[in-house]
Amino acid sequence: MSANTTSAEDKLIARYFAPLATHPGALGLSDDAAFIKPPPGCDLVLKADAIVGGIHFFNDDPAGTIAAKALRINLSDLAAKGATPLGFLLSLALPKDIGEPWLAAFTQGLREDAATYKCPLFGGDTVRSPGPVMVSVAMVGHVPDGMMVRRAGAKAGDRVFVTGTIGDSALGLGLRNGAAWPLDEAQRAHLADRYLLPRPRNALAEAVLHYASAAMDVSDGLAGDLAKLCRVSDVAAAIDAARVPLSDAAKAVLAADPAALETALTGGDDYEILCTVAPAKVDRFRVAAMAAKVAVTDIGTIAAGEGAQFRDAQGELLSFARAAFSHF
Amino acid sequence: MSANTTSAEDKLIARYFAPLATHPGALGLSDDAAFIKPPPGCDLVLKADAIVGGIHFFNDDPAGTIAAKALRINLSDLAAKGATPLGFLLSLALPKDIGEPWLAAFTQGLREDAATYKCPLFGGDTVRSPGPVMVSVAMVGHVPDGMMVRRAGAKAGDRVFVTGTIGDSALGLGLRNGAAWPLDEAQRAHLADRYLLPRPRNALAEAVLHYASAAMDVSDGLAGDLAKLCRVSDVAAAIDAARVPLSDAAKAVLAADPAALETALTGGDDYEILCTVAPAKVDRFRVAAMAAKVAVTDIGTIAAGEGAQFRDAQGELLSFARAAFSHF
Repeated sequence: MSANTTSAEDKLIARYFAPLATHPGALGLSDDAAFIKPPPGCDLVLKADAIVGGIHFFNDDPAGTIAAKALRINLSDLAAKGATPLGFLLSLALPKDIGEPWLAAFTQGLREDAATYKCPLFGGDTVRSPGPVMVSVAMVGHVPDGMMVRRAGAKAGDRVFVTGTIGDSALGLGLRNGAAWPLDEAQRAHLADRYLLPRPRNALAEAVLHYASAAMDVSDGLAGDLAKLCRVSDVAAAIDAARVPLSDAAKAVLAADPAALETALTGGDDYEILCTVAPAKVDRFRVAAMAAKVAVTDIGTIAAGEGAQFRDAQGELLSFARAAFSHF
Repeated sequence: MSANTTSAEDKLIARYFAPLATHPGALGLSDDAAFIKPPPGCDLVLKADAIVGGIHFFNDDPAGTIAAKALRINLSDLAAKGATPLGFLLSLALPKDIGEPWLAAFTQGLREDAATYKCPLFGGDTVRSPGPVMVSVAMVGHVPDGMMVRRAGAKAGDRVFVTGTIGDSALGLGLRNGAAWPLDEAQRAHLADRYLLPRPRNALAEAVLHYASAAMDVSDGLAGDLAKLCRVSDVAAAIDAARVPLSDAAKAVLAADPAALETALTGGDDYEILCTVAPAKVDRFRVAAMAAKVAVTDIGTIAAGEGAQFRDAQGELLSFARAAFSHF
């Protein structure tokens, strides 16, 4: 443990973090805590998620994308709940060898996303880590009174939708770990980028709020996450694997290595929205998604029963060695 | 990175953390996020602070006290702002060798404090740490509309108060690090306990809310924290060091080792409230503190000017090699 005459931590906060604290109640990070007036008629939506060097990102990833990932995995949860971000708290644990250039890039990444997603820094702290970098974000959002979209709520007959494409991040991680798939430069870059930088679907939050019967974000793999949604909704899902939306890069991987389908469907880190929509609301949901410029794909049906089943184009049931990604 | 068929993390959450999520909006931790209805007519008060093994606690400290410390350092900030806790989010990073007995003790400590301070778990996550244990807490509290007590607000003529006793935790850390002070068993136990387990003064929050002109919690040492309060309030403070409240154990240390006064006044981890009170409100503040059963001591005066000066019983100015504790 070390000590200084005037706190180096205070200087670091003033220089790198205070500019992100644009909410007046954050008091420029000069106080012990921030205060915010909750929007009238709203429930607050609260979420915390951390990422750790060597586990959720590579220690040599660009600092700006590490910051963005930490923020975006939480933004993705808010989007899936139909919530609008208000701001976030940050706890940052830094090893001794982290210098100011890293911190400047990290806070620049954080600042850009805070502006893009209208999600200012409310406060937090920076501590010394004897291990890797750890970034813990706690996010506060809001929904109209009583309207947070839950995982429980899917009904027999509902359609199952996912946003964007599935599997890119897990395949991108595969590439980082040395997988030798025959891809061109653009395909490699696409998958690598999706691992580095999630694209949370906050633009779809309002459509989810109005039209989804149940929703969650896909972070631990589509198959496992859908199984969780089915469990708490007390329903079954029948998914047509051929309709799961894939990027051109992912299709190229699967053409060369069909077994990688399991990685795509169970690998995780997608940060897409998985939701169920009653048949009567499907058209309005699609129109709202189009207006929000978020691709949504109908991949199957909710039915009575239990479990999430994926079938291939021949109607054969797919079975996965691992249903969901877990660090434990 | 490892993976399992059904998530071991989910089982761990259901077994150890879900029982702490007593707020109905936490949905038993079965969803992506929690929702809470903010109390009417209130501002939310938000704070995040993390502790790291080897930095803020010893890796062999009892797991229950590590949990309690993580919660209490945040509760202390809320108390100093005059705020009442609503609940907290937790991000927990655990090394591979942490077993279920540790986790059971950790969550038991968390559960007891969540009950004592009426501060339930709203959600969070548990991740793998390749380094030490890291516990990051984000806390949500509330104050009546516009009434969060700030660091800025001290006025010339105000009295300076602190709660409890100062320096016990820093001296307790000194003992842990091998200081050979001639103390009896009870004195050693007292100091060691104060390092392990802060006593946040949430019972005083309402008195602070009504009577303090400025307040903060003492976490980085009384001298440095008072200097910060003076800086943002644009005032000076004159402190009578002989009136700074010390425990019998701390007095015994100082009798044997007068130089340890600097450790007591600058060492940090006190988690007491430092506040300023206008002369006209001092009597009511004292009555409210007595009703709350929190000891408060008048240690000096706010004046025009800048800087926080400590003088000894002979009127000599004390100077400190380090004004405030910093991990950087």
